[in-house]
Amino acid sequence: MTYCVALQLNSGLVFMSDTRTNGGVDNINKFRKMYTWSVPGDRVITILSAGNLATTQAVISHLEDRMKLPEYREPILSKALTMFEVAQMVGEILADVIRSSSGDSGQQAASAFNATLIVGGQISTSESRIFMIYPEGNFIEASEDTPYFQLGETKYGRPILVRAFDQNMSFEDAVKMLLLSFDSTIKANLSVSAPLDLMYYENNSLQVTYQHRFEEDDPYLLQVSHGWGDALKMAFDTLPNFAPYGTN
Amino acid sequence: MTYCVALQLNSGLVFMSDTRTNGGVDNINKFRKMYTWSVPGDRVITILSAGNLATTQAVISHLEDRMKLPEYREPILSKALTMFEVAQMVGEILADVIRSSSGDSGQQAASAFNATLIVGGQISTSESRIFMIYPEGNFIEASEDTPYFQLGETKYGRPILVRAFDQNMSFEDAVKMLLLSFDSTIKANLSVSAPLDLMYYENNSLQVTYQHRFEEDDPYLLQVSHGWGDALKMAFDTLPNFAPYGTN
Repeated sequence: MTYCVALQLNSGLVFMSDTRTNGGVDNINKFRKMYTWSVPGDRVITILSAGNLATTQAVISHLEDRMKLPEYREPILSKALTMFEVAQMVGEILADVIRSSSGDSGQQAASAFNATLIVGGQISTSESRIFMIYPEGNFIEASEDTPYFQLGETKYGRPILVRAFDQNMSFEDAVKMLLLSFDSTIKANLSVSAPLDLMYYENNSLQVTYQHRFEEDDPYLLQVSHGWGDALKMAFDTLPNFAPYGTN
Repeated sequence: MTYCVALQLNSGLVFMSDTRTNGGVDNINKFRKMYTWSVPGDRVITILSAGNLATTQAVISHLEDRMKLPEYREPILSKALTMFEVAQMVGEILADVIRSSSGDSGQQAASAFNATLIVGGQISTSESRIFMIYPEGNFIEASEDTPYFQLGETKYGRPILVRAFDQNMSFEDAVKMLLLSFDSTIKANLSVSAPLDLMYYENNSLQVTYQHRFEEDDPYLLQVSHGWGDALKMAFDTLPNFAPYGTN
């Protein structure tokens, strides 16, 4: 499995992804699931991927190949005029790859090749946007009501997002919250693991603002992970005690 | 869906279950998923259920019918000599019900009738035990390494259990922790909902120690649910801030 999150803050976009891939529990590998392309001053586009690794790598390779040979192949990321066009382009490529992998083997076989992507970024003077792209190639966009997307093993890490996320939060607080969300997932599920990739894009900067890989022994990741146990215990103790016989 | 938890504390057993059942999101009902039988001074047995409602109700009806007509039907809960015998008995009935519902319609159809149960309690002088019973009728037992079981929509509520559960905790703390685990699940997933049923069995008491139904507007449930947001915020703030450029 995988765990990826993309947040739309008022100040910009934050992306985080883990790096574990597995075919069964005995074939575990480390692969990057976050890809960023930037043309400073013009555009920054980031993709997070979950699902069949051959499919997601093929999608990324298609996108990169096209940019290396722009005179032969269209459409390409670096020429898209809007993020909506980017989402359409990525969705088409994704659906094509899944279709060609599964051939005529029917719907059930096709689902084995499925992948889901998050695409976010900003192009020129248009606003920064985040899309979730389904295996069929269609997509939805993050909005004020739902200003974040999760991919993969989303349930363990969701309660902390539901409670703590606020579009006004600072980038630094967002990173703290995301590390807690990832830590909860990692503690409960073998199929998600550090290193964790982080990318922050500040709105209208049109360049990558901050990138970092949290290795398993990253001091801040360890501080947050170890500190959270004690902090939760303290939070737990501040809540009133249950009084079964009304003797509180 | 459903969410149920059974904990093995050093002091006894705690059971909690929600009451929402649904066939799609437009057919939502309220059904008890916790059943307790007790013969004071001799035995207390509790079953939590998740899965196909027709299957779980049939299992419970079989168990109750047998106890009403002990001269005609065997084996019965009230005569089992050990909790292991109880688990075997319940497992056999469960597998039988699923088999007879699915008939010859093959494995895929059978899975539509599946249910999973948690059975816990104590009989006479033997120790209190908790079992998780699978649709096939086989089962596993809670141990010191894994002193609790979850059923149904387990992922949202797991991180708080992983962090806060301790076999030495008091019954009152266990209830607080369970309500947080259920609250996290309810906040993230429509298919789990209050009222929540609680049962506590104190080891060697051989009678139901405490039973309570938390309605949606239960004052303590609301206190815990509302207080947790602030408590988490406080816990969050005690953690060190992320310093992207090492300026902390």
